Amino acid sequence: MLGGGAGAFIGPVHRLAAAIASRLELVGGVFSSDPERSREAGRTLGLAAERVHGDLDALVAAESALPPDERVELVAIVTPNHLHYDAAVRALEAGFHVVCDKPPTLSLGQARDLAGRVARTGRTYALTYTYLGYPLVQEARARVAAGALGPIRRVVVEYLQGWLSRPEELGGNAQAAWRTDPARAGISGCFADIGVHAQSLVRFITGEPIVEVAAELVTHVPGRRLDDDGAALFRLAGGGRGTVTASQVCVGEANGLSIRVYGERGSLTWRQENPNELWFGWPDRPTERVIAGMASLSDAARRYTRTPPGHPEGYLEAFANIYADTAARIRDPHAPAPPGIELGVASMAFLEAVVASSGAGGRWTEVAG
Amino acid sequence: MLGGGAGAFIGPVHRLAAAIASRLELVGGVFSSDPERSREAGRTLGLAAERVHGDLDALVAAESALPPDERVELVAIVTPNHLHYDAAVRALEAGFHVVCDKPPTLSLGQARDLAGRVARTGRTYALTYTYLGYPLVQEARARVAAGALGPIRRVVVEYLQGWLSRPEELGGNAQAAWRTDPARAGISGCFADIGVHAQSLVRFITGEPIVEVAAELVTHVPGRRLDDDGAALFRLAGGGRGTVTASQVCVGEANGLSIRVYGERGSLTWRQENPNELWFGWPDRPTERVIAGMASLSDAARRYTRTPPGHPEGYLEAFANIYADTAARIRDPHAPAPPGIELGVASMAFLEAVVASSGAGGRWTEVAG
Amino acid sequence: MLGGGAGAFIGPVHRLAAAIASRLELVGGVFSSDPERSREAGRTLGLAAERVHGDLDALVAAESALPPDERVELVAIVTPNHLHYDAAVRALEAGFHVVCDKPPTLSLGQARDLAGRVARTGRTYALTYTYLGYPLVQEARARVAAGALGPIRRVVVEYLQGWLSRPEELGGNAQAAWRTDPARAGISGCFADIGVHAQSLVRFITGEPIVEVAAELVTHVPGRRLDDDGAALFRLAGGGRGTVTASQVCVGEANGLSIRVYGERGSLTWRQENPNELWFGWPDRPTERVIAGMASLSDAARRYTRTPPGHPEGYLEAFANIYADTAARIRDPHAPAPPGIELGVASMAFLEAVVASSGAGGRWTEVAG
Amino acid sequence: MLGGGAGAFIGPVHRLAAAIASRLELVGGVFSSDPERSREAGRTLGLAAERVHGDLDALVAAESALPPDERVELVAIVTPNHLHYDAAVRALEAGFHVVCDKPPTLSLGQARDLAGRVARTGRTYALTYTYLGYPLVQEARARVAAGALGPIRRVVVEYLQGWLSRPEELGGNAQAAWRTDPARAGISGCFADIGVHAQSLVRFITGEPIVEVAAELVTHVPGRRLDDDGAALFRLAGGGRGTVTASQVCVGEANGLSIRVYGERGSLTWRQENPNELWFGWPDRPTERVIAGMASLSDAARRYTRTPPGHPEGYLEAFANIYADTAARIRDPHAPAPPGIELGVASMAFLEAVVASSGAGGRWTEVAG
Repeated sequence: MLGGGAGAFIGPVHRLAAAIASRLELVGGVFSSDPERSREAGRTLGLAAERVHGDLDALVAAESALPPDERVELVAIVTPNHLHYDAAVRALEAGFHVVCDKPPTLSLGQARDLAGRVARTGRTYALTYTYLGYPLVQEARARVAAGALGPIRRVVVEYLQGWLSRPEELGGNAQAAWRTDPARAGISGCFADIGVHAQSLVRFITGEPIVEVAAELVTHVPGRRLDDDGAALFRLAGGGRGTVTASQVCVGEANGLSIRVYGERGSLTWRQENPNELWFGWPDRPTERVIAGMASLSDAARRYTRTPPGHPEGYLEAFANIYADTAARIRDPHAPAPPGIELGVASMAFLEAVVASSGAGGRWTEVAG
Repeated sequence: MLGGGAGAFIGPVHRLAAAIASRLELVGGVFSSDPERSREAGRTLGLAAERVHGDLDALVAAESALPPDERVELVAIVTPNHLHYDAAVRALEAGFHVVCDKPPTLSLGQARDLAGRVARTGRTYALTYTYLGYPLVQEARARVAAGALGPIRRVVVEYLQGWLSRPEELGGNAQAAWRTDPARAGISGCFADIGVHAQSLVRFITGEPIVEVAAELVTHVPGRRLDDDGAALFRLAGGGRGTVTASQVCVGEANGLSIRVYGERGSLTWRQENPNELWFGWPDRPTERVIAGMASLSDAARRYTRTPPGHPEGYLEAFANIYADTAARIRDPHAPAPPGIELGVASMAFLEAVVASSGAGGRWTEVAG
Repeated sequence: MLGGGAGAFIGPVHRLAAAIASRLELVGGVFSSDPERSREAGRTLGLAAERVHGDLDALVAAESALPPDERVELVAIVTPNHLHYDAAVRALEAGFHVVCDKPPTLSLGQARDLAGRVARTGRTYALTYTYLGYPLVQEARARVAAGALGPIRRVVVEYLQGWLSRPEELGGNAQAAWRTDPARAGISGCFADIGVHAQSLVRFITGEPIVEVAAELVTHVPGRRLDDDGAALFRLAGGGRGTVTASQVCVGEANGLSIRVYGERGSLTWRQENPNELWFGWPDRPTERVIAGMASLSDAARRYTRTPPGHPEGYLEAFANIYADTAARIRDPHAPAPPGIELGVASMAFLEAVVASSGAGGRWTEVAG
Repeated sequence: MLGGGAGAFIGPVHRLAAAIASRLELVGGVFSSDPERSREAGRTLGLAAERVHGDLDALVAAESALPPDERVELVAIVTPNHLHYDAAVRALEAGFHVVCDKPPTLSLGQARDLAGRVARTGRTYALTYTYLGYPLVQEARARVAAGALGPIRRVVVEYLQGWLSRPEELGGNAQAAWRTDPARAGISGCFADIGVHAQSLVRFITGEPIVEVAAELVTHVPGRRLDDDGAALFRLAGGGRGTVTASQVCVGEANGLSIRVYGERGSLTWRQENPNELWFGWPDRPTERVIAGMASLSDAARRYTRTPPGHPEGYLEAFANIYADTAARIRDPHAPAPPGIELGVASMAFLEAVVASSGAGGRWTEVAG
C-alpha cells in the first residue's frame, strides 16, 4: 500500500475492504514519505519491518528481491492525486498488479499513456470507483442494458457534499488541504474528487459515454484555488441529455450521490445514502421499489451481495466488491474485470472538457473519445 | 370565468379554489368560444343564462350594464396561453380585477405592457403561481429573508412530469394539444408551461432574480413542435448558481416540482408532492423537518394554513390561498398582494432568455431586468 | 350546524368541506348554547339572523315553520360527544338529515337506538369518519375486497398524536378540556376520540369486524380523568390478528394514523400524513407505490379524486368526500352511502369492549356483534 | 467455530464480521456433525486439516493439547438453538471464551445456569444481539440515558419478516426447517428467533426491563408446529407501556426491525433497514434527523463507526462491532463488555413469560426478574 498512514481517510477503507474481500492480505507498504512515520504506521498495522519502506523505489527493490511466491502481488495506491500516475507506472512496470484511487492521473494524456502500459504489461489495473461496487448499481446497469427503460432521454446525476463549505484547508484538515491544492489535486478540486464519480456512474449505468458538456465550475470559499462546486449540462452518445451537479459546499449534505435515468419506457432512481433500494418508474403503473438481495435480481447484482434482503450492506462492502473482483481477475483473466483504466480515461476526458468549457464561458465542448 | 369548459383541467381547479377561499362566487363566464357549448357549460354549473356568453366582449358589455354592486368584480382567465394577454387587457380596461393562469402573455413585451396597464388602472391582477400558495413555500421564503441560510450559493430546482412522454397531442388529449402548439402556447412548450413555475419558486424563495442562463431546450417526441424537456444553468443576482430542469417526458414522474437552496450557513428542501414538510440542513447539526401548522412558523406560513399539524392540505388549498389573497386585496389595498404581474414579467424575461440561449448554442445569456 | 362557534376546530372544517363538496350551503345553526355568542358567530359567518338560534329546539321549530323547499335539509352536529345522540334524535325525528362527528353516542345502547331511528325515519345519517374519505383508503378497501392480499393474517393500526402530552386541559385549551372530561367525552378519552378512527379504518379496509380485544387503557398525565393512551391486541372475524395503538401523549407525533394489512399473498400500507401514496408488498417481487389519481385505480378511488396524480389532495378533500356522498345520498337513495350508523354501532361496541377488557386485567373480551 | 457449514446463513456472517473486526482469525472448527462434511467445509475455508473436527469434544481435546499461545481463544457457536447451551458449557469449562447466537439456551433455567458458569470461569461470553452493534442504537441508548426523552411512556417495537409466509420448511429450506422444529428451536419459533431481538432492543435502548406481558403467539401456516407470528402488550419497570409485534409471515417485509420510544419530553425512532438515521421528535419543535458519523454523537456511537457521515455502514459492521468488543474484552477486562449472558437471561425470561401468557388466554404475566 502506498499512502494511507496516520490521519488518512481512504487508506483504512482499503484495508477493511480487502479484509471483507477476504482473498487479500496487507503485507507491506509506504505509508508516508517520511521513513520514520512510515515505519511507525507499519508497526501499528502489525507488519514486518522489512516490508515497510519510505519510498516506492525501495519497496519495489525489496519485493522484487523476494521469491515470486513470497512477493507482493498487488500495489494499492491511496495517495493524493498527483502521485497516482508515477506510482502506477512504476508498479506496473515492475510487474505488480495495481489498485488505485480515482482519478487515475492528472491529465488525459497521462491516462492514455497508462492505458497503453496496462495493455502492454498485461497486469490488472483497478480504479476504485467505489460506487460501482454497489449491488443495485449493477442491477441498474443490467436493467438498462436489457432495454427495460428504452432509449435514454434524460439523466440527472448529483454528488453533493457540505464538508468544504468553510475553509477547512486552513485549519489543519489534511484531507481538505490536498484536495484544494492544485499541485496535489490537479486541474480541478470538486470535479476531480467527486464529479468523476458522478460521471462514471452515468457511464456505467447508461452504458453511454458523455460526448459534450457545457459547464461552469465555481469557487465559493474565498481564497480557495480550485473549484468547490459546479454544474454542467451534458449530452450522451445516444442523444440523451443530462445535468451533473457536484459540490462540496452544500451545507447539510453528507455524501449525496444520486442518479436518475429517464428513458422512453421507464425510469430508475438510486441514492448512495440509502443504497439498498432501487426505484423504477413506469407510465400508468405503480412505481417499483427493488431491494438488494431479492432472488429476482440480475446475476451481477447477486454476485455483489453477501446478505439477505433487509440486512443492509454499505460502502465498505461496495469497496470490497471492487477488491474481490480485482483479486479474482489477478487469478483468472476470464473473471469479470473491475473498473479499469478505460473508465479512468473517460473520467479524465470528461474532466478536461468540463474545465475547458467552464473557462470558455460555458460553451458546448466535445469530450475526447 | 373565461375558459374552463368541458374537458378542461384548470377551470374546475379555479372553481374549487374559489369555493375554499370562500369570499368569491362564480356568477358567469365564457366557457367556450362556441356560444352553445358555453351555455351548456353554464347550465352545468348552475349559472343564470344571461350571465353566460360566447365571447369576452359580450360578457364585458353585459356586466358593465349592470349596477356596480351586482356586477362581476373579478375575471378569471383560464384559457390557453395565447388568449391571456388580450383578455387581461380587456378586463382591466373595463374596470374588472383579474386572476390569470401563468404565463401572463406570449412575450416579454406584452408582459411589460400589461404591467403598465395594471399600474394605470389600479386593478388587482393576480397570476396563479399556485405553488407559491403553499404554507411551507411561504415559510421557506421567510426563513431565507431572515438570513437563516446565509448568502445563497447553489439552487437546484426541478419540475419533472411524465405525461407527455408519448405524443398525446395526436390522440385527442386537449391539454396536450394546445400546450404543444406554438400558436396557442407561444415560444416554448415545457418551459412556458412548467419551467416558469420552477423559476418563480426560485425568485420567490430566494428573493433574488435569475440574471443569466445557459440553457438547452429539447424536443424528444418526434414531430412535436415545441420543447418537451430542457435544462439550464443559471446565476442569481447575489452570485449564487443553480440548475433548473423541466421536463414533461420523465416517465414515472407525476408532478415533481422541488427546490433545494444551499446557503453559506444552512440549506432547505421542499417537494411539492409532499408539500407539508420543509427540511433544513445545517453543518454538524441534525437535519430538521418542519411541518405545516407548527406554532413556531412564520406569520406568512400560518396565514396560509387551515388545519393543525398532520392534517394535510394540498394543491387546492394552495390555489385557494392565491384566490383568498386576491379577494382580500380587492377589498383592501393594504392587504398582502397575491403573485402579480411583476412575477409575470420576470417569468417572461426568463423564458425569452432560455429560448435565446438554447438557440445560441447554450451561451450565457442575460435575463432582461 | 350545531356547535362549531368561536375557538372550535372541527366546525370550520365542516364548513370548508361542505364548500368543496359544493352541493351544500350553510344557512343557519346553533353555534353556542349562549344565544348571544351564537348570534355573534352567525354574523361572522354572514348568516341571516333569523336562522341562528341558541338551542336546537328553537332551530327545529323555526325551520319546520318554513316551506319545505326553503327549509334546512341537513343538520351538521359538530359538538362535543355528549350532545351527539340527543341532537341526532331530535333532528332525525323532525325530519332532517344528519351529519355527525364520531363517536355517534356515549354508549352502544344509544348507538343501537339511533340505528333504529335512522332505519325508521329513512333519513340519511352520516358519520364523519373523515379518513374513509381518502381516495387511497377506498383503493385499499377495493383491493382487499378483490382478494389481492388473500386472507388477512395481521393488521397493525396506529393513531399517534402528541398534543395532550402535557395537561393542556388545565391551560384553557377548549379542545383538550372536553376531550378529557368524562361528562362530555364519555367512557373514554383517547380511544373515543381517535381509537375509533383506527378501528373504523380496520373495519372498512379489511371488510371484517374486530370480534375480540385484549386491551389496556392508560392515563399518563397526572390528574387526567380519562385514558390518554392505550393499546390492544385484537382478532378479526376471519381469524386475522392485529394490534391497535392510540395515544395522545406521543411527543413528536402530529396526526399519525396509519394502517398495515398483511395477507397470505400480499400486504398494504397507508399513512394519513402522506395520504396520496399506497404501498403494496409482495413475496419475491418489488414493493409497489400507487399514487392517487392514477388511471388504473378503482372506481371508488377515482370517484373521490379531484386532481391529477402528483397534485396532492388532503384532509379537507377527504372530509368533503363524506359530505358529497351525503348530499348525493339525500338526493338519490341509490347513490353510494356515506359512513353511517352501522359503523358507529361497531365503534361503540369496540369502545365498550376495550374499556371492559382494560378494566378486567386485559383479558380477551368479545366485541358485541 | 461450531456450525456454519455449507448452506448456513449466520456462519459466513460471523466470519465476515470477524474479518472486519480485524483482531480475530478463524483457525478451526466443527462445521458439521458429519466429520467428512466438516472437513470439506474446513478445506473450503482454507483451514489446517488437524484443526477441523466432527464434534466439539474432539476440538476441545485437540486444542487443549496445543501450547496456550497457539490454542484457539474463542469459540463461536453458530448452530441451531438446541445446541447453544451444551456447547457453551463445554467451551467455557474448557477455558475458552465464547461468542454465541441468540437465544443463549432453550430455557430460563439453563440461561441462569450459564450465567453462573460465566461468572465462575471468568471467561468472556458474548451473545450476538447484532442490532445492538449499530452506532445509532448506541446513540439512542446514550440519549435516553442522558434523560433527553424524559420518563418513558410508550414503546412500539416491531420485527416483521415475510420469508416464512409459506411452508418453506417442507421444501428443503434448512433455515426454515430448524426454526420451525420444537426439538431444535425450543418453546417458540418466531419469538425465539426474532422476538428476542426486539425485546433486547427495548431493554438496551430504554435501560429498563420488561416486567409484564400480555401476549398472543399465533401459527398461521397450517401444519407448522411453532409460532410464526405474535404480539404482546408489555409494561416496563419504570411504568412505560409498549407493544411488541414479531412475525415471519408478513409478506412484503424483509427484515423490518424498528423501535419508537416516546417519553415525556421527546421521542426517538430507529429502523434497522435504514440504520444510519435516528429521528428525534419534540413538542413544538422540528423533528431532527441524526446520521451516523456526525461529530456531535456520543462516544459510544462514534466508537462503533468506521466511515464518515453519508458512507453507509450496515449489518456486517454492526456484527463486527460485537466481535470487536468481544476481542477487546478478552484482552482487557476493563474494556466495554459486548452483549452478554445477562441480556440472554432477560430474553429467556421474556420468552417464557410470553409463551405462558399466550397459553393462559393472554393474561398479564410477570417476567421473572
